Amino acid sequence: MEFALIREKLDQAVALLNEHDLDLWLTFVRETSLTADPGLALVAGLDMTWHSAFLVSRGGERVAIVGRYDAENVRALGAYTEVIGYDQSLRPALRETIERLAPRAIAVNYSESDPAADGLTHGLWLTLRETLAGTPYADRLVSAENFIASLRGRKSPIELHRLRRAVRITEKIFAIVDGFLRPGLTEAQIAARMHAERERLGLGTAWDAPYCPVVNAGPDSPAGHVMPGACKTARGQLLHIDFGVRRDGFCSDLQRNWYFLARGERHAPDDVRAAWEACWAALDAGAAALRPGAAGWEVDAAARAALVRAGFPEYQHALGHQLGRVAHDGATLLGPQWDRYGRSPFGRVEAGQVYTLELGTYVTRRGYIGLEEDVLVTEAGIEWLSKPQRKLWLA
Amino acid sequence: MEFALIREKLDQAVALLNEHDLDLWLTFVRETSLTADPGLALVAGLDMTWHSAFLVSRGGERVAIVGRYDAENVRALGAYTEVIGYDQSLRPALRETIERLAPRAIAVNYSESDPAADGLTHGLWLTLRETLAGTPYADRLVSAENFIASLRGRKSPIELHRLRRAVRITEKIFAIVDGFLRPGLTEAQIAARMHAERERLGLGTAWDAPYCPVVNAGPDSPAGHVMPGACKTARGQLLHIDFGVRRDGFCSDLQRNWYFLARGERHAPDDVRAAWEACWAALDAGAAALRPGAAGWEVDAAARAALVRAGFPEYQHALGHQLGRVAHDGATLLGPQWDRYGRSPFGRVEAGQVYTLELGTYVTRRGYIGLEEDVLVTEAGIEWLSKPQRKLWLA
Repeated sequence: MEFALIREKLDQAVALLNEHDLDLWLTFVRETSLTADPGLALVAGLDMTWHSAFLVSRGGERVAIVGRYDAENVRALGAYTEVIGYDQSLRPALRETIERLAPRAIAVNYSESDPAADGLTHGLWLTLRETLAGTPYADRLVSAENFIASLRGRKSPIELHRLRRAVRITEKIFAIVDGFLRPGLTEAQIAARMHAERERLGLGTAWDAPYCPVVNAGPDSPAGHVMPGACKTARGQLLHIDFGVRRDGFCSDLQRNWYFLARGERHAPDDVRAAWEACWAALDAGAAALRPGAAGWEVDAAARAALVRAGFPEYQHALGHQLGRVAHDGATLLGPQWDRYGRSPFGRVEAGQVYTLELGTYVTRRGYIGLEEDVLVTEAGIEWLSKPQRKLWLA
Repeated sequence: MEFALIREKLDQAVALLNEHDLDLWLTFVRETSLTADPGLALVAGLDMTWHSAFLVSRGGERVAIVGRYDAENVRALGAYTEVIGYDQSLRPALRETIERLAPRAIAVNYSESDPAADGLTHGLWLTLRETLAGTPYADRLVSAENFIASLRGRKSPIELHRLRRAVRITEKIFAIVDGFLRPGLTEAQIAARMHAERERLGLGTAWDAPYCPVVNAGPDSPAGHVMPGACKTARGQLLHIDFGVRRDGFCSDLQRNWYFLARGERHAPDDVRAAWEACWAALDAGAAALRPGAAGWEVDAAARAALVRAGFPEYQHALGHQLGRVAHDGATLLGPQWDRYGRSPFGRVEAGQVYTLELGTYVTRRGYIGLEEDVLVTEAGIEWLSKPQRKLWLA
């Protein structure tokens, strides 16, 4: 299955090199248990020990130059037209291969704006320049960021299958949470139960375990990536959980919300319902704007404006990020044009990408409402990968 | 405990900046779930989302500039004299802090020779240069490799405690293996039992799980980082296992060997015993040469020459690597002066470092013997962290 995924992505890479008018893509790594290039998962899905080069040309050539001990495992992928195992130095084979392919430019994995395309370390950049010294190719290294944005962003069939499964099992865990909730549980207790369920199911966390899930019980719970603490679920208050799992190497990322009925209440009070409806109107406005060709910031602006129109404050984050091998999967962001987001909100939405859509608001004395769903961009618009939480759950 | 470890390493960092005559060390990262800087574990031990800068000065100042959502977690470390949380851009605070500290040079995490000191991506290098543009500091970035080699290599009390525990539990798993071995088991079956034990104990693998353990049963098992396969343990043949765990973030790495007595045999035959003794004579020669101030290649050469003197071929790898947060922990290598090892064999051994000592040989028609022990370098020489396998185990 892993082998099939690598072959699928390399086929896609050849097609995308042609679409992006690039001659050659080079992933250059070493000792990847220490410094991981996110590009490596696309071309090999294995850790490499010595200096290793993975080259894909627009003509369809796929050459791997790796240490002798790693060569057998790379051959076993069945994805490379040539696997060169070396004993002493990668240099001669790499120079010779590049001189034979004679590219106009070599796209390598660095980027100021996209961490998912920035796996080449500065030390390896220097080594690569030095390896190619005396050839015209030392000065032909260019950023692969746009190419990687397409390759990583447009999910292949196996990738999409895995994402759907990650979302589905996350919803199952939320259903289990729904079953054990009662007033008086601390955030830490809820998180511990969720971790136990996740581990029982053999799943990883979509982000750093201490903050996955984030659990906010009531109005006094602090915001952000904060560890679940001593705040307790209470009648007349909200409970908000932000959670995702990693399953077979792919992540989910969802937020779900409960309202704990006060004695005598049969549904959530007006202040909570008004906030809930405003959030959903905003999320739906974002969802309607999410289609191929839109700029990331345009999608965010549609949701942001709808929330403000409804009389609620702007959310202090992006409407959505791409989802894949990690929760924040890089490239185009559905975010505002704020300096901290760099160029990522200016990227264009492409069919085949998977995004979160998320926003929320505080309700005075009740707590935080945060919506988050996972969606696939299609030619026609979007497909919800999660079953949207259209109704606030009552506990 | 994690907080205590970070404080311990930052105290050590201040002392080492003075020893290395450096004014300032800067770890500069972002979205570390995608691109991990091995230096981050030394200064924070947390994943960071936005651009984040961790500065340690020789005067003892420790400043963290991180995104607002991460600031609380960094403050909780209790290790920084100042934690600056930003909303829009890291740039003003970073420029201002560096201008205030006015360093002669800024040591940053890049290195051609040491992957453990090469966490700064090329994209972040460009961002850093651009952030400091117009100040004298843009041209004062230097490699922190020697400093990091000392900081990462010289184990602090908590680090050493964790390494000892990782080694101890690995020996326990080998004892369990010893209990279930019998002729006719495949390598894959042995590996599966070891994985089950490891998971039951809540431990990770010290390297990529499919090759951890490496299991070699008999003379037909292929060498290198190869998955355990269909070769079976058999009477009159050897079994060799290379295995390590990750426990509380620190790794072990040991090799152990068994000989399966043929019918009527009461001890291993002469060919096996001769190889075993030659390997140990060589390993002991290496151990005797391992002391503070020795160059890595000198230690390797002592073992290599002893093995050749005993009439056995040179091993095709290094005698030892440093051990810590990963199995191949970077910096000084006890290896020959081969091109593929770069400058790492020229590093000097320092007290407080932890190394593997490993070498082996094939015995015709019997299989592979591979020794590997974990040792701490002391002022006086070495301390064995593992209980050395002085005798071949019989099965």
